[in-house]
Amino acid sequence: MRSLKFTIEYDGTNFCGWQIQPNGRSVQAEIERVLTRLTGAPTRLYGAGRTDAGVHARGQVAVARVASPIPTANFVAAMNGLLPDDVAVRAVAEVPENFNPRHDAKRKLYRYTLWHSPSRPALDRRVWRVPYPLDCAAMRGAAAALLGEHDFTSLSNQQRAGENNVRTIDRCDLIFAADYAPFDRDVTTSGGKIFMEVEGRSFLYNMVRNIAGLLVDVGRGRFAAAAVPAIIAAKARARAGQSAPAAGLCLEWVKYD
Amino acid sequence: MRSLKFTIEYDGTNFCGWQIQPNGRSVQAEIERVLTRLTGAPTRLYGAGRTDAGVHARGQVAVARVASPIPTANFVAAMNGLLPDDVAVRAVAEVPENFNPRHDAKRKLYRYTLWHSPSRPALDRRVWRVPYPLDCAAMRGAAAALLGEHDFTSLSNQQRAGENNVRTIDRCDLIFAADYAPFDRDVTTSGGKIFMEVEGRSFLYNMVRNIAGLLVDVGRGRFAAAAVPAIIAAKARARAGQSAPAAGLCLEWVKYD
Repeated sequence: MRSLKFTIEYDGTNFCGWQIQPNGRSVQAEIERVLTRLTGAPTRLYGAGRTDAGVHARGQVAVARVASPIPTANFVAAMNGLLPDDVAVRAVAEVPENFNPRHDAKRKLYRYTLWHSPSRPALDRRVWRVPYPLDCAAMRGAAAALLGEHDFTSLSNQQRAGENNVRTIDRCDLIFAADYAPFDRDVTTSGGKIFMEVEGRSFLYNMVRNIAGLLVDVGRGRFAAAAVPAIIAAKARARAGQSAPAAGLCLEWVKYD
Repeated sequence: MRSLKFTIEYDGTNFCGWQIQPNGRSVQAEIERVLTRLTGAPTRLYGAGRTDAGVHARGQVAVARVASPIPTANFVAAMNGLLPDDVAVRAVAEVPENFNPRHDAKRKLYRYTLWHSPSRPALDRRVWRVPYPLDCAAMRGAAAALLGEHDFTSLSNQQRAGENNVRTIDRCDLIFAADYAPFDRDVTTSGGKIFMEVEGRSFLYNMVRNIAGLLVDVGRGRFAAAAVPAIIAAKARARAGQSAPAAGLCLEWVKYD
């Protein structure tokens, strides 16, 4: 048996999420189906993390154990020929038997895309359209207040007693898309795409979407950036405002040692 | 009666093209349906040009005559609320009664996206995936040979006797996507997105896709850049090689005086 590590890209728009669900089209099920067909044996796939319905990935990582003699290098083309248009395998590599895609992950990058536009998107639909002006200097101030180790209960949608909600955010940047707006604009009033990039080892349930929601609330003046430390300290989801829609979120990569 | 000019964005993946077809989902039909519903009167739409099945637009332009009292500024939101996800109206403006979106067009920009990647795309699917290395310096040489006024019969898929196939290409640039590769690379060997941008007043049938096909043939060494003038001079479609797939093509804008 070999352990194979797959790097997977998908457009989450028409998926119920990564994980197999009783009634829904999941990324995991699509790939397990293809691996089972290629290897001739029922194959289970273990992901680095679940993504919700509508969330995308450019570099999800998952592992499967296979006994098949197919050379590792041939899996990419063979799998992509059998997978539907909205999911593709970017790379396959053999890893040690004890490799655990979830626990061994050292760093993840999520990118959330905001689109400041008067009309809704028809081409670039993997965005959250925000029609009002955004004070990006204030949003950067709020992002800075999230950096480092905190109890992020206020930014988790799963509230369970006794759960350890301490996480570390290594980076939280707002970046204007190069083809839309200059880097140094402080207030978006005339359209443009803004990427919110968040890096850390692991995140709570819906945490990145809740960060995006909080930063947009700051950008439109519902909260002051200076209020963010108190919102976090309150450890209460209700204090942190809205969750951002799934469509804007993409898991860009997962890094291992 | 007012004449209204619509700026329209669409993802052509699931359309049979711009123009109404007996059996197929067209952009024109979707918008006419919505205008007819909003104004209460059967409404015809006239586009700046047709786009084929699978071709996209960020700035298609079309005109309709309406008698409805709806303020011009309200059309964008009203139409987008009724249109499907893959088509949206970006702007509406009143124009003089004699405005002709096709004949009055002064300049159009088409962008063709090449994606050099070992795996097929699942997220950014509006591309032509080219798995082999491309000699971009040679492609730029070929692009330069297309500039200016020529009889482009060799690059048209509609060969009709007596047709005037003289057109002028004002610009034909190869641009690396900022987030994929440096601007000055001459050969793509390690992945990256390349935009081919072509500007001109009007184009022959399939001309931009045929230019993309020719440039890729040059990039992979099937033709030398120096052979391009003779290919054009031959006025024979068969000399110019392949047509590029529809999925990579997008009509970015149409300019008027």
